[in-house]
Amino acid sequence: MDKFLGEPGIADWLQHTNHITRLFLSAGNIPDLINLAGGLPAPQLFPVEQLAEFAKAAILEDPAQTLGYSPVEGFAALRDHLAERLSSDALKLTRQHVLVTTSGMQALDLVGKVLLHRHAVIATQAPTYLGALDAWRPYVPVYRCFGASASRDQLRGAFDGCRFAYAVPNFSNPTGKLVDAGTRQALVDTAEDTGSWLVEDDPYGKLYYDARPLPRLIDLAAAKHSGEAYAGRVIYLGTLSKEMVPGLRIGWIAARPAMIEALTMAKQGSDMCTSGLSQQIALRALSEGLIERRHADMIALYQQRRDALCAAMTRHLSRWFDWDMPHGGMFVWAVARDPNADTDQLLQPALAQRVCFSPGSVFSPDGTDRRAIRLNFTLNAPDRLELGVQRLAAAAATLWGHR
Amino acid sequence: MDKFLGEPGIADWLQHTNHITRLFLSAGNIPDLINLAGGLPAPQLFPVEQLAEFAKAAILEDPAQTLGYSPVEGFAALRDHLAERLSSDALKLTRQHVLVTTSGMQALDLVGKVLLHRHAVIATQAPTYLGALDAWRPYVPVYRCFGASASRDQLRGAFDGCRFAYAVPNFSNPTGKLVDAGTRQALVDTAEDTGSWLVEDDPYGKLYYDARPLPRLIDLAAAKHSGEAYAGRVIYLGTLSKEMVPGLRIGWIAARPAMIEALTMAKQGSDMCTSGLSQQIALRALSEGLIERRHADMIALYQQRRDALCAAMTRHLSRWFDWDMPHGGMFVWAVARDPNADTDQLLQPALAQRVCFSPGSVFSPDGTDRRAIRLNFTLNAPDRLELGVQRLAAAAATLWGHR
Repeated sequence: MDKFLGEPGIADWLQHTNHITRLFLSAGNIPDLINLAGGLPAPQLFPVEQLAEFAKAAILEDPAQTLGYSPVEGFAALRDHLAERLSSDALKLTRQHVLVTTSGMQALDLVGKVLLHRHAVIATQAPTYLGALDAWRPYVPVYRCFGASASRDQLRGAFDGCRFAYAVPNFSNPTGKLVDAGTRQALVDTAEDTGSWLVEDDPYGKLYYDARPLPRLIDLAAAKHSGEAYAGRVIYLGTLSKEMVPGLRIGWIAARPAMIEALTMAKQGSDMCTSGLSQQIALRALSEGLIERRHADMIALYQQRRDALCAAMTRHLSRWFDWDMPHGGMFVWAVARDPNADTDQLLQPALAQRVCFSPGSVFSPDGTDRRAIRLNFTLNAPDRLELGVQRLAAAAATLWGHR
Repeated sequence: MDKFLGEPGIADWLQHTNHITRLFLSAGNIPDLINLAGGLPAPQLFPVEQLAEFAKAAILEDPAQTLGYSPVEGFAALRDHLAERLSSDALKLTRQHVLVTTSGMQALDLVGKVLLHRHAVIATQAPTYLGALDAWRPYVPVYRCFGASASRDQLRGAFDGCRFAYAVPNFSNPTGKLVDAGTRQALVDTAEDTGSWLVEDDPYGKLYYDARPLPRLIDLAAAKHSGEAYAGRVIYLGTLSKEMVPGLRIGWIAARPAMIEALTMAKQGSDMCTSGLSQQIALRALSEGLIERRHADMIALYQQRRDALCAAMTRHLSRWFDWDMPHGGMFVWAVARDPNADTDQLLQPALAQRVCFSPGSVFSPDGTDRRAIRLNFTLNAPDRLELGVQRLAAAAATLWGHR
């Protein structure tokens, strides 16, 4: 299957990588495929004209900075803006707390470079983001798992001896679940008690459709030392990819200055600096409030699509799957009723029907969760979601019969 | 000195990183500093108006591709273009031989991810590019060094047991030297004989000013199996940073398809994909021949600046240093006559004089070469080069006296 496995000298961790990401990133190459697999935003929400103007203006007005090398840690003005944007009543951030990254994915990679060694222990919410699993695969880590609802005792067991804990509190990828308020506080308390770093990955934090926003872990960590410059143990990761566009590859990390310093040295050896053009466009877009201006439209569109997907699933998939409707984010997580179902086996029949989804196994640190599928609702319009689900039902019927 | 060294859980390799890169990337923040440290191209050569138009047009004409996620391996059209551009009489490349990377630096990082483990052996031309040392620092590798002129026996000794060999054959960073034709052939032969991968880093391959271009290692490797699709052991790295602009962060790797496949999986976990906007701009710029159109101007400007730097050095630095004038590239490598000189000690006096350079130690896999300095001539105009060298001479006089 893997063309490189016969090659000499290839690192062993490459035998255990995921192939679903490449599939959905290149899904455009398969004619008429309905892509329910990726976490892709709706292109009609892209602020196309404004970004085109910002790109042109940035290059013409400041070519040396925009087209030259940037500081490793990112442009000071962008770091200042992000520090202000990410600050809250409890959380006081300055430039020294912020690193600009080449996508949220790079942030995960840098966290691994700074904190992991081979076979290191990671405490993670599970199932979890496959990109995080990809980023840390080179270290062949040992995972200790906890759920979106966990007690302090459970967390203490998972955190024991870990290099860091990882959570996606808002609309966890892949399950779409919110980590509840009590578990959030327990995560922060346990990190403080055990002296563990706690990585909060928050790409979906602004995608609340019909639930009351819960505090971020970094807010809770800051509240423990209210009024002081932030020096907590939460490392907060954000990205422009879900709220604006993925194609600029702009992400950020907020953390205590000493951790930012270490992450910066790791970034220097990873890509030296993030594109000056991408940074300048991001700064202009953020400064002009482009995210805020389009936020209501985004919420309305995604909420409608979530409803459309769930309605189509009720019509066509309920004989095989159970799911909860998520209150935000980009995904519905559906679990097969049959305890012996393996959704990896559903992938080929689905592709034959011209639809793709993400099988649960790829989100599982230990290869379990094989009964689940993750379906994205943000990319496709309601009629395509309906057709995609019909195709998926046809694939399920082929594999499992009508039950 | 390092603010993060007291932090718990920070990986050990971060104690041995370089601080000169950040210094020269943020040199713009020090008023009136003359930056002779970085490998920075001259901003007046940036094709500003064209790139501004390409950026705007790419976003407006194809927003979904330009602003969305891209395939991990890069856009097919860009890979096709690069395959054609990099092919030669001996070397037949197709899309499957090419990976688009987020800068040449990322290419080095990916090579490490695919081929290195902790304490792995790397055979390297020495002194060598500090970015490569940075990229591979997380593995705390063992280096076996060879020079720009080396026999097959010397190379065989260095290659023994290595995961790969690394060379910058064209105007080696930092020395500006050409690896001679015989050594090139010996490198390729030794790689084939020993079954070693051979990483050819070629950012300066088009920056020949007054020497006849020598064949690339990948050409020599391909010539061994002429007429066949490329399946050699050379992994070739290129970048847009020196020939056009660094700010797009576009680089590329050409290698046999199985190695490209492995590198692609490593890239997936590093930043998932390179900016679609940067790729689209690069594709348009390359397709329209922007590099070729400006090449003669670039060579003329850089040759003039090399001559200006060397003339200024002869006037002001020859009492302390010896050097060879390079026939291309971006740097002059000067070695102190005093065998006990340590140019690390020259850095602070130089900064006090408002000039910066790269001390030899940072290019040395084993911390030797402390007598040398690397001076860049591409960024500054002749009058600034003269002033920079005067300042450096003042710093040297402070440290070492007039001799």
